Amino acid sequence: MLALSVIGILSAVISVHGNGQIQSEFGRPVQQLQSTGAPWPQPQTMTSATVTFPLADPSTFRIYQKSQTLCPVLDQAFARYFNIIFFGTPEMSEEEKLMKLRDMRQHGRFWNASLHGKNLVALMGLSVNISDCSEMFPSLESSENYTLDVSEPFASLTAHSQWGALRGLETFSQLVYESSLAMLVVNKTSITDFPRFAHRGFLVDTSRHFLPMDILLQFLDAMAYNKLNVFHWHIVDDQSFPYQSKEFPYMSQKGAYSPHYVYSQSDVQRVISYARDRGIRVVPEFDTPGHTQSWGSVKGLLTPCEDKSGKPTGDYGPINPILNSTYAFLKPFFQEIFKVFPDSFIHVGGDEVSFDCWKSNKDIQNFMAKMGYGQNYSKLEAYYEKRFLGIVEDLLAKPIVWQEVVDNGVQVNLETVVHVWKQPWQSELHNVTKKGYKALLSTPWYLNLAGNPYGQPWRQIYDIEPLKFTGTAAQKALVFGGEACMWGEYVDATNVIQRSWPRGCAVAERLWSAENVRDVNEAASRLAEQRCRMVRRGLKAEPVTGPGFCEFPGSN
Amino acid sequence: MLALSVIGILSAVISVHGNGQIQSEFGRPVQQLQSTGAPWPQPQTMTSATVTFPLADPSTFRIYQKSQTLCPVLDQAFARYFNIIFFGTPEMSEEEKLMKLRDMRQHGRFWNASLHGKNLVALMGLSVNISDCSEMFPSLESSENYTLDVSEPFASLTAHSQWGALRGLETFSQLVYESSLAMLVVNKTSITDFPRFAHRGFLVDTSRHFLPMDILLQFLDAMAYNKLNVFHWHIVDDQSFPYQSKEFPYMSQKGAYSPHYVYSQSDVQRVISYARDRGIRVVPEFDTPGHTQSWGSVKGLLTPCEDKSGKPTGDYGPINPILNSTYAFLKPFFQEIFKVFPDSFIHVGGDEVSFDCWKSNKDIQNFMAKMGYGQNYSKLEAYYEKRFLGIVEDLLAKPIVWQEVVDNGVQVNLETVVHVWKQPWQSELHNVTKKGYKALLSTPWYLNLAGNPYGQPWRQIYDIEPLKFTGTAAQKALVFGGEACMWGEYVDATNVIQRSWPRGCAVAERLWSAENVRDVNEAASRLAEQRCRMVRRGLKAEPVTGPGFCEFPGSN
Repeated sequence: MLALSVIGILSAVISVHGNGQIQSEFGRPVQQLQSTGAPWPQPQTMTSATVTFPLADPSTFRIYQKSQTLCPVLDQAFARYFNIIFFGTPEMSEEEKLMKLRDMRQHGRFWNASLHGKNLVALMGLSVNISDCSEMFPSLESSENYTLDVSEPFASLTAHSQWGALRGLETFSQLVYESSLAMLVVNKTSITDFPRFAHRGFLVDTSRHFLPMDILLQFLDAMAYNKLNVFHWHIVDDQSFPYQSKEFPYMSQKGAYSPHYVYSQSDVQRVISYARDRGIRVVPEFDTPGHTQSWGSVKGLLTPCEDKSGKPTGDYGPINPILNSTYAFLKPFFQEIFKVFPDSFIHVGGDEVSFDCWKSNKDIQNFMAKMGYGQNYSKLEAYYEKRFLGIVEDLLAKPIVWQEVVDNGVQVNLETVVHVWKQPWQSELHNVTKKGYKALLSTPWYLNLAGNPYGQPWRQIYDIEPLKFTGTAAQKALVFGGEACMWGEYVDATNVIQRSWPRGCAVAERLWSAENVRDVNEAASRLAEQRCRMVRRGLKAEPVTGPGFCEFPGSN
Repeated sequence: MLALSVIGILSAVISVHGNGQIQSEFGRPVQQLQSTGAPWPQPQTMTSATVTFPLADPSTFRIYQKSQTLCPVLDQAFARYFNIIFFGTPEMSEEEKLMKLRDMRQHGRFWNASLHGKNLVALMGLSVNISDCSEMFPSLESSENYTLDVSEPFASLTAHSQWGALRGLETFSQLVYESSLAMLVVNKTSITDFPRFAHRGFLVDTSRHFLPMDILLQFLDAMAYNKLNVFHWHIVDDQSFPYQSKEFPYMSQKGAYSPHYVYSQSDVQRVISYARDRGIRVVPEFDTPGHTQSWGSVKGLLTPCEDKSGKPTGDYGPINPILNSTYAFLKPFFQEIFKVFPDSFIHVGGDEVSFDCWKSNKDIQNFMAKMGYGQNYSKLEAYYEKRFLGIVEDLLAKPIVWQEVVDNGVQVNLETVVHVWKQPWQSELHNVTKKGYKALLSTPWYLNLAGNPYGQPWRQIYDIEPLKFTGTAAQKALVFGGEACMWGEYVDATNVIQRSWPRGCAVAERLWSAENVRDVNEAASRLAEQRCRMVRRGLKAEPVTGPGFCEFPGSN
């Protein structure tokens, strides 16, 4: 099914070895073989014939909506994918385009009636048919299904929603490749596709290091190219508070690294709309009661730690759970968050709550005694979560929590989503789903922790099968997705794209494609192509499959 | 001695913890403390007073040569460092400069006679005094010593050669910082400095992945900012042959990844002159007899592997050592290399020679028998190296070889430099120096292999003491330097700067500074500053010391 070829190797005599790597006629070892025109992630079903259609000249090639539905998201996407298909990259000035076009015409990269006549049949365009464009934003329930038939004279893409059409456009753009005659071509292909898991996310941490807007938008591009659909924005944490609140603007004034390292309300809206245009949900995380050191500007919010004589040490601990003022702040704050972010889910954290500071505080000790909690500070945490999640649920927001919340025995609403990040993930998933909670998996996909890049850690990342844990069918049905995570201690604008991509592609295929798509050597050749595709589209995705190079069509 | 301060933390109340990390008034943990105006690598001796001089306005500030020596390298360097000192980055258009200047003047960043009068004494410039500018290129023997006295009205830099002056200019530029009043200032300082080791290199591999010219030049900038002085250009290897030979142009035509991935003769000269202008030697490596799969276009050069019946398998092994035609090619080829690269050293490889293909070849078997080598293929390797090194020495070139050449018992000239890359490096250095060879160390500094970036691998890299091996004083005196290595399997233009820097800084300080400069926590604060300095100068050096941020003077 996969057309494997070696792009740009000058020698014609090549041999393919068992590990999916190639040798040239001089026996050059260990270059990773690259597929051509193979999609990533692998569609659910795909049949592809050896019949190949050259693309018509861009002056006649059309991507258009067959349906009558007004759908601005698609109009934008058509323009973007038109550029990607013909020029390899979504953004290009009109001047550059004209120059490029002239050059491409000269080199005969398109079907040309006078040259090719009836001997070659060109693909004249792509017609897109959707039945519904009413959803303003993608949601967990949105349909991403699509079918794609590539056949002359017009390829045809059908989907229920614009979100499915976006997925199909991405796939179509990946099917186009440069033939051995240097023409842009696409194979006769038929695809029926849909995601295996509904929630396919990537956590990005903008607290340990601030990430500028252009990097966040690049990240969203990368996600779209891999059909990921949830941008989990771990926007604040202990180290800094870059979110510029409408109601509490002093929080970023005091808590951001600097006045330059802040996301204004319009920045946030830009991220949300840029993501929406790519079929990506933005789920913000405001993690409490731990991981809140940068929230300290809210008077009385954090627990003052005390020494043995009861004097404040000057250090602060997690949010103080015993004060009504705490909840009086949390309510309007999360009201704002739920208004600013259109998604129905909010990630509310709940991980790694240290009890040391709570234990040191006299008022908290008295409260514990009054409540009859003894020395069981998990009960205090549960008290906090119960009151806090009540606020969140009153907003009709759906909370996602890190697994500790239920590990520590808090009785939360069964609609609460539990995010698993601890080892061994198999038993953790078993425990969480046994309690009846819906679950997301991230443990094996902490890409920041992935091993030595010299050993191709993407292979282990790819190898994970998220439903391979002991449990009933009902338990497994509760696992509705997962997320790659890139924690920010050692990444910023200089390297976050490189370290996240194409590693993140491995998670993306695992969450989209069928369970039986698991051949890591076959995947390597497609991953090498996918990474070059991303580089060509302007993203600094690093090489992860070994020696080799990206040769762009038309680069010579 | 180090002025430690926290740049840009909005809170005034901070506490410094034992591990060199800071907490803000809200107790935000684990931000790496940053030094201000602290040089990297640490100078040999440095005294610095609390007296601080603001810099005069750039319209009056002068960097000039006091000596009468004509020295174009310095003239260029003055312009570069002038920009770095005032604008933070070496290259800036005149228009940008004017805009920036206006803004900086408005914000009072310079000494201003009418404002500050006699209450503040400004630094009016830097006078540079060298006695000799006659060396066209830096060499192993070049002096890099300098003294720097920063005192009003003119700081004074004295060095024997332009190379020493370049080191001093770099140091001076690093002493300048932004005061709490947002003025550009420098502390009264006196420095006497010289390198501990004469050969401080960085190996860059352009064969596994091609690196474009702009990346190579960025790499040289990074080296200069860290006082490294040998660019070890591992230019070709098995995977590709991007060097465009004058005499044998077909080698890159056949052996490069593609026609775009070639270094022309003018590219090579550009690298050499750009390096020279920064006091950096370029030592090329053409590794033989192994690692030569991409040399296969040279007819008959590689050994044809044979199957048991004596038929060629189509695969090729290392260079064929038994043919006179081999040496008839190597002689003019290395003649060219020695002419193209001005350095007196050539790295000629000699590592990882696999004997399998040699063993399979009937002609070689016969040759072994005739020579009485039995089954000892190391003797055949020695035969090759003896004839080959004879050619190199006839050119009066000084060879550097990987350690296997002497490990395998080849009797080479004692002037040959042995490059140690195997573990355990302590005993390897002992063995090599015991035989009387000069040695370079790289084993612990394979930065491509450095561990999980989540664990700050730079700390282990920094911790290495290269002379901590069993041996006499005479043996230790033979170790004249070392090299960081970034092998190219998993790096290309997208990430080679990030993965090499600031990790390479750790090796640079180890090789330049005094043996007793080893406090890794103290180093962390200077490294955080050095990495932000590199970012400000336009290099994508990644964060390696944990959460934090770079606040550039004048960025607000």
